[in-house]
Amino acid sequence: MKLYNFFRSGSSHRLRIALNLKGIAYEYVPVDLRTEEHLGAAFKAVNPQQLVPALVDGELTLIQSPAVIEWLEERHPTPPLLPANAEDRARVRAMAAIVGCDIHPINNRRILEYLRGPLGADEDAVNAWCGTWIRAGFEALEAMLAADRRRGRFCFGDTPGLADVYLVPQVDSARRFKVDLAPYPSIVAIDAACAELDAFRRATPGVQPDAR
Amino acid sequence: MKLYNFFRSGSSHRLRIALNLKGIAYEYVPVDLRTEEHLGAAFKAVNPQQLVPALVDGELTLIQSPAVIEWLEERHPTPPLLPANAEDRARVRAMAAIVGCDIHPINNRRILEYLRGPLGADEDAVNAWCGTWIRAGFEALEAMLAADRRRGRFCFGDTPGLADVYLVPQVDSARRFKVDLAPYPSIVAIDAACAELDAFRRATPGVQPDAR
Repeated sequence: MKLYNFFRSGSSHRLRIALNLKGIAYEYVPVDLRTEEHLGAAFKAVNPQQLVPALVDGELTLIQSPAVIEWLEERHPTPPLLPANAEDRARVRAMAAIVGCDIHPINNRRILEYLRGPLGADEDAVNAWCGTWIRAGFEALEAMLAADRRRGRFCFGDTPGLADVYLVPQVDSARRFKVDLAPYPSIVAIDAACAELDAFRRATPGVQPDAR
Repeated sequence: MKLYNFFRSGSSHRLRIALNLKGIAYEYVPVDLRTEEHLGAAFKAVNPQQLVPALVDGELTLIQSPAVIEWLEERHPTPPLLPANAEDRARVRAMAAIVGCDIHPINNRRILEYLRGPLGADEDAVNAWCGTWIRAGFEALEAMLAADRRRGRFCFGDTPGLADVYLVPQVDSARRFKVDLAPYPSIVAIDAACAELDAFRRATPGVQPDAR
């Protein structure tokens, strides 16, 4: 498989973790967002939406990380990233969607460029923007995790799964935007548990081939 | 089941369509975003994220429409909203996620309030913002639909499914923000096919009990 991605992109980071947890080897194809390589014709032929990541498996091209991860779960079910029970799956998918819908897409590169450009926001305003949506999502996640007896070392139980795959890149991004994580002890503890695992360590932005 | 929702919320609209397509009757519980009822203690006890919609089935409370719809698909599989094949499912879920991650959450109420408030955007700037993200997503969707032989009267084949559930509320929102839909003939045709179906008609914002 080939993973078209960018080291610092949160949704790329997410897919790297999922592939590592599944034990699937992949070829790393960097798409440099800094030089707008994702907006060029070559990458548009891979993904008409011109966003990273995209996963290519032979003739098949998959886009949108939530769809890619569900496909990985269906075609490569072991180890599972989702619980066995439908209600537990709904819980885990909801935690993932808090990050995947309501935090990450609002803070990604194209949005921040628009804030800086057409809306004339300075860096303080951009950081305040990112902090607002990260805190809103983390408050909800922290409340859910703190109240949930199904929580273990990870968001669900004692093995890493879908919600952790989403959470860890978002914590990384929160640190980059200097969000105070002290109000979110459950999130911090889960992030620390993930950081002990090789699958997460090998996926971190700083150790990717295009990180420089 | 009880659906906590608001007539004009796109993700509420999405869940109403999904429930109607599944033939599941539900009690409509309005949460008035105009009076910030979603930020009050009563609704926070339902959904710690303080966003609509939430679906309550007995003791179970489900949040985040992507997670709720996957749960509906698992617990109420007939009629299916997803295709039988994993690769087709990935395609349909990707189309849904283009709307569910990269258009809708960037244009929802709390974001537009932030643009108007802290960022001081006027209504022209707000409409330009919404139009930008709707067009970006619709361009990708149109390219995918136009190139896809699996497309039929609907996003996938000749029966309505997950991608249509996401698309129709977003087309409704695009019209509200006066986005020119002429460049997206496949999207317009699918929206028109959906508008012929009772499940979609009964879900439209204008006919809900809290629409006034």
